[in-house]
Amino acid sequence: MRKRLRELGIVIGELPTGPYNAITDVPGVRVGHSTVIYDAPRVARTGVTMVIPRDDIWHDAAFAGYHSFNGNGEVTGLHWLEESGMLGSYIGLTNTHQVGLVRDTLVEYSVALGYTRSFLLPVVGETYDGWLNDINAFHLTKADVYAALDSASDGKVAEGNVGGGTGMVCHEFKGGIGTASRIVQVKAGQFVLGALVQANYGSRRLLRVDGVPVGRALSAEKIPVPAREPLDTSSIIIILATDAPLLAGQCKRLARRATVGLARVGGTGHNGSGDIFLAFATGNHLPRAVDPVRDLSMLTHVSLNPLFDAVAEVVEEAILNALCSAETMTGYLGRMVYALPQDDLIAVMRDYGRL
Amino acid sequence: MRKRLRELGIVIGELPTGPYNAITDVPGVRVGHSTVIYDAPRVARTGVTMVIPRDDIWHDAAFAGYHSFNGNGEVTGLHWLEESGMLGSYIGLTNTHQVGLVRDTLVEYSVALGYTRSFLLPVVGETYDGWLNDINAFHLTKADVYAALDSASDGKVAEGNVGGGTGMVCHEFKGGIGTASRIVQVKAGQFVLGALVQANYGSRRLLRVDGVPVGRALSAEKIPVPAREPLDTSSIIIILATDAPLLAGQCKRLARRATVGLARVGGTGHNGSGDIFLAFATGNHLPRAVDPVRDLSMLTHVSLNPLFDAVAEVVEEAILNALCSAETMTGYLGRMVYALPQDDLIAVMRDYGRL
Amino acid sequence: MRKRLRELGIVIGELPTGPYNAITDVPGVRVGHSTVIYDAPRVARTGVTMVIPRDDIWHDAAFAGYHSFNGNGEVTGLHWLEESGMLGSYIGLTNTHQVGLVRDTLVEYSVALGYTRSFLLPVVGETYDGWLNDINAFHLTKADVYAALDSASDGKVAEGNVGGGTGMVCHEFKGGIGTASRIVQVKAGQFVLGALVQANYGSRRLLRVDGVPVGRALSAEKIPVPAREPLDTSSIIIILATDAPLLAGQCKRLARRATVGLARVGGTGHNGSGDIFLAFATGNHLPRAVDPVRDLSMLTHVSLNPLFDAVAEVVEEAILNALCSAETMTGYLGRMVYALPQDDLIAVMRDYGRL
Amino acid sequence: MRKRLRELGIVIGELPTGPYNAITDVPGVRVGHSTVIYDAPRVARTGVTMVIPRDDIWHDAAFAGYHSFNGNGEVTGLHWLEESGMLGSYIGLTNTHQVGLVRDTLVEYSVALGYTRSFLLPVVGETYDGWLNDINAFHLTKADVYAALDSASDGKVAEGNVGGGTGMVCHEFKGGIGTASRIVQVKAGQFVLGALVQANYGSRRLLRVDGVPVGRALSAEKIPVPAREPLDTSSIIIILATDAPLLAGQCKRLARRATVGLARVGGTGHNGSGDIFLAFATGNHLPRAVDPVRDLSMLTHVSLNPLFDAVAEVVEEAILNALCSAETMTGYLGRMVYALPQDDLIAVMRDYGRL
Repeated sequence: MRKRLRELGIVIGELPTGPYNAITDVPGVRVGHSTVIYDAPRVARTGVTMVIPRDDIWHDAAFAGYHSFNGNGEVTGLHWLEESGMLGSYIGLTNTHQVGLVRDTLVEYSVALGYTRSFLLPVVGETYDGWLNDINAFHLTKADVYAALDSASDGKVAEGNVGGGTGMVCHEFKGGIGTASRIVQVKAGQFVLGALVQANYGSRRLLRVDGVPVGRALSAEKIPVPAREPLDTSSIIIILATDAPLLAGQCKRLARRATVGLARVGGTGHNGSGDIFLAFATGNHLPRAVDPVRDLSMLTHVSLNPLFDAVAEVVEEAILNALCSAETMTGYLGRMVYALPQDDLIAVMRDYGRL
Repeated sequence: MRKRLRELGIVIGELPTGPYNAITDVPGVRVGHSTVIYDAPRVARTGVTMVIPRDDIWHDAAFAGYHSFNGNGEVTGLHWLEESGMLGSYIGLTNTHQVGLVRDTLVEYSVALGYTRSFLLPVVGETYDGWLNDINAFHLTKADVYAALDSASDGKVAEGNVGGGTGMVCHEFKGGIGTASRIVQVKAGQFVLGALVQANYGSRRLLRVDGVPVGRALSAEKIPVPAREPLDTSSIIIILATDAPLLAGQCKRLARRATVGLARVGGTGHNGSGDIFLAFATGNHLPRAVDPVRDLSMLTHVSLNPLFDAVAEVVEEAILNALCSAETMTGYLGRMVYALPQDDLIAVMRDYGRL
Repeated sequence: MRKRLRELGIVIGELPTGPYNAITDVPGVRVGHSTVIYDAPRVARTGVTMVIPRDDIWHDAAFAGYHSFNGNGEVTGLHWLEESGMLGSYIGLTNTHQVGLVRDTLVEYSVALGYTRSFLLPVVGETYDGWLNDINAFHLTKADVYAALDSASDGKVAEGNVGGGTGMVCHEFKGGIGTASRIVQVKAGQFVLGALVQANYGSRRLLRVDGVPVGRALSAEKIPVPAREPLDTSSIIIILATDAPLLAGQCKRLARRATVGLARVGGTGHNGSGDIFLAFATGNHLPRAVDPVRDLSMLTHVSLNPLFDAVAEVVEEAILNALCSAETMTGYLGRMVYALPQDDLIAVMRDYGRL
Repeated sequence: MRKRLRELGIVIGELPTGPYNAITDVPGVRVGHSTVIYDAPRVARTGVTMVIPRDDIWHDAAFAGYHSFNGNGEVTGLHWLEESGMLGSYIGLTNTHQVGLVRDTLVEYSVALGYTRSFLLPVVGETYDGWLNDINAFHLTKADVYAALDSASDGKVAEGNVGGGTGMVCHEFKGGIGTASRIVQVKAGQFVLGALVQANYGSRRLLRVDGVPVGRALSAEKIPVPAREPLDTSSIIIILATDAPLLAGQCKRLARRATVGLARVGGTGHNGSGDIFLAFATGNHLPRAVDPVRDLSMLTHVSLNPLFDAVAEVVEEAILNALCSAETMTGYLGRMVYALPQDDLIAVMRDYGRL
């Protein structure tokens, strides 16, 4: 049975986690997965993950911002998010070749429910699962998108080989979905910050766990690496959520700091990697078309430092949770990608004076 | 029979046009349309336009850049275009709710032809045709995308109610697809600059033709305006092409100047308008994976001024060509949008000392 | 005696002006000029203009945003303005080679008055007056900066050959400082929008007044043009101010639309032109270090359209006011730059069916 | 006697260094310092550092790009660098309140030497040394800028309490100037990548050396920390140089990856930190005004990965070299900032299984 990082006794950073150590610790945030695994007629190892910022996000947008650390990927809907500073849709995550399907299905879904008056620009991101998934079979259907929507819930979030993360590879171990959260105390009060990642990037030798060079210790001699060119088909999408009353520019500041957590684990933004980070803040409400002036609040910039530190912590831990939760998988063309071995991880950490 | 702007004797700017006064005057550029019009079971007034930068763009990328003047719209594929400075796919234009279909079909198409080794991030833009088109019927199918691809040709470009422009409305007249070109002499030689627009923005009263306030003269009393809130559902996508040897940053400079042509016609970037401009330059070749160093050339920045002036001219004329070519259309819910009346246009121009 | 544009009977756009048709119509905004003109020992035609967003801006920042239409110029202080969305200093305008002096003097000024706790990143922009001003004599001193500060007042704003605009050239006529304002009615109430420009860009042949090709009519045969390469040393800095409660991203949206007004007059962003636009909004208060949460208000995005239209109008009129107010000047090396001849302007407008 | 990091036996990363392990290992790059230290009449602990990309950079620009990780700082000249993709001046580094002096003096210098035909937009950055330096005395004069220029040389680079870094504080130890380099083998050949930092950011508890939590081990109980609010007045400027033939967009990609090296040491981009990173590449030559077309070469994007990894390494090591080289300093108001104790550093590294 796979354990999350903290269950192994490894603690990242200084701040306390929320009750589920998950993005769903942010009140109102829900996550759903649709996992598509079969071997015939063609091998499917893919899926859809849906992050719901709040149920009525279609009518009550949230401030949001994004950062593209290395833009070799697709996330739709970001032109308007950048222009308006607002997120007004659910966030889908899937494989590279079916972003369009998930995006149009979110339009259809919102139309069916009367959520949209005229047009919609949904946010859907992707990473490439074509090593384990026969991606050019275009397995996903609208039904898979609806299944991810239907399964969305608060509380515990399934990690590893689920949803959009099903076929992903991270630091040449099996990757996928991971999540984490922190409780942050700032002068204005206590807020939750959560991250959810779809992790599919990186080389083995750069992998670090809390600063320990685990990837060099668990080398290819010890555990085989996928025989691919690892760097051309990698990516990580990071979603940050908080209930703090932040403005759009402050969300962008959070998104930019996701780079710090990624860098600590060993990401350097290789050329083939689509490393795009999105942050939203539900502390303000931006309802459609009611009053022509909205009343808002914002944390002062100077009080954001604990949130910045927290971003680094949740991203680092969310990636490591993806690695800890994902199990060894065999897929397309019989390829096998190994899980990060937890016993070995613990041994290496001990060798380096931790635990 | 509708005439293009120059056929009416109205000349924009100082520079000579190419032989077709179209984006296809740029060598290698081709344009295709798939126009979808029917009344049952639900009213369709939509389509797909495809701009092919060069046939082998999948293997031989072109430098490119974009500018979002008002990002209330979707153009996929721009994160990698921004990161790499390169365009490596055809460019699709369609309606807002089926961007995903066109995008995924371009992936499928390139996979089928062996054009992609691993993954692809196609560029597909949209404007909203939901006033004349029953957009939530999601009329388009993959076959329509393939039809647009199959119809692509050089030479004359159909304008007005065709392809992605079929159901569009511009300055409260019937809009759609328009194009124009200029021959530009710079120190380094002679180059072609072309524009293609999908024009669906603007209010009547701001419409100007070569500086003449035509929109105020052709007021709603004279020709009825659509009874919609015009500004919430408008947009314009502008594609610029040149055979000059420009680098990515120089393409971005061209794209930013599309704003000038739009401003001259009367665009002010209203909130609901997705005004996104993309420029590519085929004067350099960026083949995949051959040598690790590429030899390139670039025009000096200081020699770009004639190209900057030309951008303003082609965008202004391409929009006006869309207005001149589009014919009156009746569509969804029996709504009628009138064509810009050419006799009246000429009369107004004469009143203001032109022609 | 030179007249402003409206005094000639030429009206730009549809919206009413404020009482002074100046940026100072925005409550709290003040403008000061220090004009430095002498012929020995070396020829000085330069100066400093100071825009004061509100007197206590050092302690009570305003939301702000900027757009670089063509970044061939310097405006200091914009990294933090972009990061924070806030403007916390006065705005200086001067010549290209002494931006640093004005910038450091603003630091010294704020330190002397106890306005800064630790460090300051003042906003100072420039255009190049080296055609009429012997710029490499570095004429300006700290005293000139203090003189501009001391002279700041509300009410009428001197235009033309004053302050930072003293030696400027615009569309190959004498340029300089210009200003204009509009009263804008949105659903939430009535607000003022003002512009101040330091106009030093453009070629004669592209000059348009309300759409009329005045520059072609007033050709070099009629009124001599400066014998310089006009495009390599041109620029325009545009400052927009409003008392509406806008957020930072909304200020950036305003700034981007300054391009529209510039384009209408005939700017195409030539390579040598530093066309940088800054907008601030005083409708919110962002006092330093009081409460960790600030209460704010914002206009909805959808209600901004009248402000967007107003930006185009004030920028167009402010540039034309600079041209109308500036007088013929002889300067460095005996060079002469002619004022826009107002009688001829009126005659041309009549020829084209205006007035 | 202080040692550099490698002299202590601590090796960062996998790649070999250049002969001096300094930015000057990039052919043509020179560095000069002017260090200003005195106690009366007011306490000076400040200076100027000058990075010379190549001697004739005024006539032969280099492609360049920048990234603002947290824009609470000033670097002049970046609007044109962003617009053109080119660096055409030396790069100055100094204290926050005299950026303008250094900037205008670089203009004067280039004018005196006939290096500029018309105008110049020099690049000058800053960090805030007001804890140890009585910054509001404005100590620096033009002579100090000229001294830094005159002292510029290739070969060994002085580090720590020198030049612009004289009064800086980093992770609550004494900071300042640091440098490092790597030799990078890509498919196209071998290139040098160098970094120079002016390091003045960060909190003690986040300091890591090669992943080891040194800052927590060397706590305030062990070595006193400055009694300031450390995070409001911190910053780091990072300059990256390479002789590889990169285009502007590729330089920007390098600059963005400086975040990785900073993150590994413990930077999280606190609110008061001006973390601005600039990269230039001398592998192409962009001479002024010769031919209207320039011949260039570029490394393919896919071959950049070793350079990306190298950026992380040089930035991490350059910061640590600043910390290792800087000596304990007493300054303004008798404040003392301690050097990172090298014996303790070694002991901690051993405790954590290194060395």
